Amino acid sequence: MKNTMGGKSIILRLELLTEQIHFGQLITMITENGGDVIAIDVIQTGANWTVRDITVTALEQTQLDKIVARMKDLSGVRLIHVSDRTFLLHLGGKIEMKPKSPIQNRDDLSRVYTPDVARVCMAIHENEDNAYKLTIKRNTVAVISDGSAVLGLGNIGPYAAMPVMEGKAMLFKQFADVDAFPICLSTQSTDEIVTSIKHMAPGFGGINLEDISSPRCFEIEERLRNELDIPVFHDDQHGTAVVLYAGLINALRVVGKQINEAKVVVCGVGAAGIACSNILLAAGVKELIGVDREGALLRTKEYANPIWKEYAKRTNPNLRSGSLHEVIEGADVFIGLSAGGLLKRGDVERMAANPVVFVMANPTPEIHPDEIEDIAGVIATGRSDFPNQINNVLCFPGIFRAALDCQASTINEEMKLAASSAIASVVTQQELNKLYIIPSVFNQEVVRRIREAVIHAAIQTGVARRIPREFRQVDKSV
Amino acid sequence: MKNTMGGKSIILRLELLTEQIHFGQLITMITENGGDVIAIDVIQTGANWTVRDITVTALEQTQLDKIVARMKDLSGVRLIHVSDRTFLLHLGGKIEMKPKSPIQNRDDLSRVYTPDVARVCMAIHENEDNAYKLTIKRNTVAVISDGSAVLGLGNIGPYAAMPVMEGKAMLFKQFADVDAFPICLSTQSTDEIVTSIKHMAPGFGGINLEDISSPRCFEIEERLRNELDIPVFHDDQHGTAVVLYAGLINALRVVGKQINEAKVVVCGVGAAGIACSNILLAAGVKELIGVDREGALLRTKEYANPIWKEYAKRTNPNLRSGSLHEVIEGADVFIGLSAGGLLKRGDVERMAANPVVFVMANPTPEIHPDEIEDIAGVIATGRSDFPNQINNVLCFPGIFRAALDCQASTINEEMKLAASSAIASVVTQQELNKLYIIPSVFNQEVVRRIREAVIHAAIQTGVARRIPREFRQVDKSV
Repeated sequence: MKNTMGGKSIILRLELLTEQIHFGQLITMITENGGDVIAIDVIQTGANWTVRDITVTALEQTQLDKIVARMKDLSGVRLIHVSDRTFLLHLGGKIEMKPKSPIQNRDDLSRVYTPDVARVCMAIHENEDNAYKLTIKRNTVAVISDGSAVLGLGNIGPYAAMPVMEGKAMLFKQFADVDAFPICLSTQSTDEIVTSIKHMAPGFGGINLEDISSPRCFEIEERLRNELDIPVFHDDQHGTAVVLYAGLINALRVVGKQINEAKVVVCGVGAAGIACSNILLAAGVKELIGVDREGALLRTKEYANPIWKEYAKRTNPNLRSGSLHEVIEGADVFIGLSAGGLLKRGDVERMAANPVVFVMANPTPEIHPDEIEDIAGVIATGRSDFPNQINNVLCFPGIFRAALDCQASTINEEMKLAASSAIASVVTQQELNKLYIIPSVFNQEVVRRIREAVIHAAIQTGVARRIPREFRQVDKSV
Repeated sequence: MKNTMGGKSIILRLELLTEQIHFGQLITMITENGGDVIAIDVIQTGANWTVRDITVTALEQTQLDKIVARMKDLSGVRLIHVSDRTFLLHLGGKIEMKPKSPIQNRDDLSRVYTPDVARVCMAIHENEDNAYKLTIKRNTVAVISDGSAVLGLGNIGPYAAMPVMEGKAMLFKQFADVDAFPICLSTQSTDEIVTSIKHMAPGFGGINLEDISSPRCFEIEERLRNELDIPVFHDDQHGTAVVLYAGLINALRVVGKQINEAKVVVCGVGAAGIACSNILLAAGVKELIGVDREGALLRTKEYANPIWKEYAKRTNPNLRSGSLHEVIEGADVFIGLSAGGLLKRGDVERMAANPVVFVMANPTPEIHPDEIEDIAGVIATGRSDFPNQINNVLCFPGIFRAALDCQASTINEEMKLAASSAIASVVTQQELNKLYIIPSVFNQEVVRRIREAVIHAAIQTGVARRIPREFRQVDKSV
């Protein structure tokens, strides 16, 4: 891990048997291996033993690794654990629950709990809509995963998935003041997931599904959308789609093309690929070709996967067939949601002039941006170490902020398109260029614009159950 | 509602059409009806309208009711809503989620979320026990209800139950720094409740069941205790039992009796009555008689309710039969968990000398304490407006604090008994008297003592999966 001086640092918790080792010997060993002891904390001491936290920095990770290895050889030293800053940030979890008001005396207690709370309960019992006024439902989203497809790590299960969901909850709060709570399920049965989420929903104003593997994610989301009256949003699909389309709006501006005239190839027809295709079709793309292991998907072919069958019906109107390398001929836009290395420089050379290339496979893009920098019109990736990062964090805080504020019953296609346009609009015409098509996640304008655009779309499509005051103002003036 | 001056106050949100009503007219009306305007907040203003919050106090609630009623008659005034302080404290819910560290830049983002979070996920994937170190599981409890038996309000459902569960989450944090999250279930099927809770459990270090109706609560708790490796604790049963027994320890000290010699009558053999009986039997009570609608429960009789059947086998060893009024003859202790008015002064007169009378029916005790003050040795109730309140808030924060700190796999009978003794011990021999047998919920010593006693009990009974450092110290010195 980097510290502020550009080096690496770790914290070693050691138990030292003071009759067997002098502290000086230890320091000498660390120094001899290129380490620098920058802090010592005595945690606990006994008659002939002591537990200490030693913070060590070094220029290279290999030096630290060597120090840790040597530590195990010293007699009288027991290495309890090694921490780095990322692990320290995770100790005991990354979020906490806070009361909004203190309970300092019996008067406070009797208001927030018995007996006075009974009046609040009855107000909700008489009119369920009051739950949005008088409970956390107004501002709370569940971030739910079954741990089946976590980041690029695969099916690591509910315990190991928790740090991602907690991180997501932090982002919800930090970027959009949404209270999100992480729930990881110990089942991967579609039926059981649907039933459990349905049953826990009353206290939430929305459900953010996360890292659920394909194709189960489609059925789970669809069934929950039908059964619940709050938004259900599988971020891996729709968050990606919204941000991708935001990037594409601006990329097409840079290369001077119209979306309804662009030939688009989507490589990787999984959960994200299908969601991205759907938003592009809704946005007006006419020629969209999905490519997966079997080549371009065609309505005239048979597929074991019913989702591909349905997908093929809605795409590839000109029935282009063949491999990626064949159908990419003359394409204006490449959308990669597949795997590293699938796209070749030769493919990009055969695309139309000024090709837009979104290579979003993680951690390795379909082609390294440096390989095509000279021939691509615009390049975007999913990574933060290249320009134009297509990052879900741009979407989910704002879109749920909007959904909660207007008590939306769902997040529909119109709201997603509005979110994309809002994200794209943050980059001004003056700022726009091939290396800057998408705003930073730290740009505070992003959430504000998404909120406004998405609430408008929710009101216009009739799914807003509450009109926030500033939107009523507008209505009054009409 | 009382304000600090002893009067009542409300906040009226009004929309005033300024061409139809002068603000002065409004104030005059309020004053004429005995109200006093103590604050005005302008919320929003248009060309010919304004929205204001008017805080009004009065000596009597009836005056405020009159003002609200008159308001509706004034033309040009629209009453948007009336709030009192209890409702205001509930607006938007009573708790929020907070990140423990800020995300201010890309470096922070990459540690708490992708890509660095992946290392933390994998550390848990490799060793599931790391979930206790690296996620909120270490300090988080789910407060779960199906809304079937909320306070004294009955089956009001999951939406209306939320304010109670949120209040409970506040108390967990305020009194014991436990992060609790409220979940209200939209099912009252035993099977579905068990399955849903089981599936959502991975992220939690404990499950506090709450306000689930009898007899379903027994099966739900038992099945979850068998299926989960974290504590499952139905507070209405066991919290009540722990605090009751704490009170009884000190009550018996006051009247100078031994628990194993006391004849105890428990009136009301529901969820709480059975849990209280169980803890008293575990604590050494020999003669315990349960009384319900059919009189004293007897192992020689047949009951439709299988729970009564099983209860009768373990109680009433001398086969006393008859109504409450018959079996109470000569009893040392009366434990009421039934309904208001069931106990008569004559019954208490026929008890043994210095009778201990716990009348915990809510909101109306089995007998009003004033009626028996002169003849009872000790009286306790469930209410805060009499001495000796048997209040669950004394137990659940501390017992879960202990369970989390030692990563207990369950909360067993020994831990509950330890919690009772710890609560009782807070009242010193010098302080102890018939009007002070139980500490205040605001006494900070309560949680500290419960924690220590319960962790010791967990270690001794082999259910602690972690020995907190200060307890290891003790072990080393042994």
